[in-house]
Amino acid sequence: MNLAPSPFAPSVFPVLPAVRGMTAAAGSRGFYARRGITRDDVFLAVFDEGTACGGVFTRSLTASADVRWCREALEAGGGYARALVANSGNSNAFTGPKGVLKNEATLKALTAELGVAREQCFLAATGVIGEPLADPNFVGAYVPDLAAKLGAPDWEALARAFMTTDTYPKGAGKTAEIGGTEVRFAGIAKGSGMIAPNMATMLSYVFTDAAIAPALLQEALKRAADDTFNCITVDGDTSTSDTLMVFATGASGMEAITSEDDLRFRAFAAALKEVCHDLAMQVVKDGEGASKIATIHVEDAASPASAKKIACEIANSPLIKTAMAAGDANWGRIVMAVGKAYEPIELESLSIWFDDVQVASGGARAPDYDEAAASAVFAKPEFTIRVSVGVGSGRATVWTCDLTHGYVDINGAYRT
Amino acid sequence: MNLAPSPFAPSVFPVLPAVRGMTAAAGSRGFYARRGITRDDVFLAVFDEGTACGGVFTRSLTASADVRWCREALEAGGGYARALVANSGNSNAFTGPKGVLKNEATLKALTAELGVAREQCFLAATGVIGEPLADPNFVGAYVPDLAAKLGAPDWEALARAFMTTDTYPKGAGKTAEIGGTEVRFAGIAKGSGMIAPNMATMLSYVFTDAAIAPALLQEALKRAADDTFNCITVDGDTSTSDTLMVFATGASGMEAITSEDDLRFRAFAAALKEVCHDLAMQVVKDGEGASKIATIHVEDAASPASAKKIACEIANSPLIKTAMAAGDANWGRIVMAVGKAYEPIELESLSIWFDDVQVASGGARAPDYDEAAASAVFAKPEFTIRVSVGVGSGRATVWTCDLTHGYVDINGAYRT
Repeated sequence: MNLAPSPFAPSVFPVLPAVRGMTAAAGSRGFYARRGITRDDVFLAVFDEGTACGGVFTRSLTASADVRWCREALEAGGGYARALVANSGNSNAFTGPKGVLKNEATLKALTAELGVAREQCFLAATGVIGEPLADPNFVGAYVPDLAAKLGAPDWEALARAFMTTDTYPKGAGKTAEIGGTEVRFAGIAKGSGMIAPNMATMLSYVFTDAAIAPALLQEALKRAADDTFNCITVDGDTSTSDTLMVFATGASGMEAITSEDDLRFRAFAAALKEVCHDLAMQVVKDGEGASKIATIHVEDAASPASAKKIACEIANSPLIKTAMAAGDANWGRIVMAVGKAYEPIELESLSIWFDDVQVASGGARAPDYDEAAASAVFAKPEFTIRVSVGVGSGRATVWTCDLTHGYVDINGAYRT
Repeated sequence: MNLAPSPFAPSVFPVLPAVRGMTAAAGSRGFYARRGITRDDVFLAVFDEGTACGGVFTRSLTASADVRWCREALEAGGGYARALVANSGNSNAFTGPKGVLKNEATLKALTAELGVAREQCFLAATGVIGEPLADPNFVGAYVPDLAAKLGAPDWEALARAFMTTDTYPKGAGKTAEIGGTEVRFAGIAKGSGMIAPNMATMLSYVFTDAAIAPALLQEALKRAADDTFNCITVDGDTSTSDTLMVFATGASGMEAITSEDDLRFRAFAAALKEVCHDLAMQVVKDGEGASKIATIHVEDAASPASAKKIACEIANSPLIKTAMAAGDANWGRIVMAVGKAYEPIELESLSIWFDDVQVASGGARAPDYDEAAASAVFAKPEFTIRVSVGVGSGRATVWTCDLTHGYVDINGAYRT
């Protein structure tokens, strides 16, 4: 299937900093070659000894074998990492005992080739769910080839190797001064459907040469995910493979952050969140068939969690998403979505704005409602829907895209 | 907007029994005439004294003024009804104080014209949410006209009067022998979007000449709704106006059912459920843009509620619904949906069938998986998706339709 690029696709892949303390290589297992497509479909990253890592994963109860291994390795390896292998073309989810054999074969190849502990090797796979694996060694067999090509990471090549229905490779980087040391961050992501809060069909990795204790790295990642990747939604579906991991090599030369009270922790966490936000926005902007993006702000809710629940109901409503696609400023559907969140609201205070245009106030249409002004906002490629529910001070922001004919086309044809 | 009729549209409206003890009339307030469409947009039903009633309503916290009135009247009127007025064209939801004034004006007209108690008059409205009411008397003013036309109900005319995006009027009837008396049931429904468990944009009324105490009637209705209207989904959206009511005039001459232990209660409840099931199926088959219908059976779950939760995740998944539309038997997405229900499952026992074709068994693709056979099922207009999750004996059935280009078109253009 040929996908038209998202209207939000950047013209070029961004220049990302060279993160010290790691090497990487991308290559082809020939998965797409069978369909006549020349592209990479696997990458390997190798980290210096002492590289800390953290991860957050799908909550799905049918999570892939790779996700289950990563959870196990994060525990067994003490939060340290030496290698990462990710492949596209098969998600290794619902593949039964064979899925575990594939992981065993890949881990065996990694330990043999690189001389690293198996519980410090992380795996990821993305593609069709439930497709049986013909050969358990279909990733491991390529490890020697990849190991031979290791070098300074070509971020775009890595980002391209694990794309599925993505219409552009996604990368974001940052260089930050942390406690007087220059620290570099480079992140890549893939994903454009099965995207919902709680990390949907999305794989993302952030690499940094910061030095930080594993427990703190995990905490910073969790906070970053909560405010970024867990605030985007394309279709409300949740994948079996979602993974966001961070690897901190320590090669910047900074003294390690070992306490949350260290002011440098705050600076590190802020930089990590900034990279995650950038990547998350790129994922939602590549939402399957997306032509428009909305930022949903909910405020004056009973709590931040309540605000997020309401925002997600708005962001996931097919009726609102189809209205967005058509440029129809049907604000009554926002009222509908607020009502089905079953969170505390004061109906008589409910107010809604499209960008700066107030469309509802005091539980009814705004007195000076202007259909033309409201429609003009919905005609824009990016706009904000702001809702005040009038009961407290909780607020939340989520991001969503519209539901277009493109989504129907892409998801009817995904396996073909 | 011109809607192509659903492929499931019946060729003619069914013949429904003449329910004794009530009269009705449909008419036009001219709402659609403004758009150049000649059709009725309001109906009135009037019931003999002593008519019991029951109702279940949307759980939405932004419920329409009409829904809020019906809840109040059901309480204040002791479960008895004398009149029902329903209009299409404006949902009277999020209309602020004016919405209450509209109801007051309608109730005043009903009491003046018919000499009935206001708390025994029920109201319903369906249409665009949040559209302000120019004139609070825009329904009440037509009550005298309607009252002058009252006669034996023309069920099809009533069903047509409250259609919105429906492509066909929906009716279902039954004649049952209950304790030796012939009892008649006639039901009508409207609704084709914002349809999700918990009663979405759906109005439905069942009329019967059975004699039954209000509390038992309410109980029978609640049970019927749980297994029928609350088991269908079109888009997971929940409307501000959903209403299912039953009116029992007692005019069949049977002695009233006053105890749940009365064997006739079971017969009555079964007949009521049968009519509700028929109507609910007609609603899902008219789902906006629907071209296919799936029955989702989940079995071997921890409880019936757990089975229903899993079944609803499958039924509401946009990825499964687009695959249905395309005839792509992408069973991996069923695995995805099961995983995001967060209900107890035994992954190693998870099995899936499309009609009689087993596609997954024991936590992986079925050994004798036959893509052609699976695709043949997904090519049919109606089929069954059966999932066993292997932990208990809970089971549930829900019904859903596919997500097509038609849905995107209809919901982009609804207000135009």
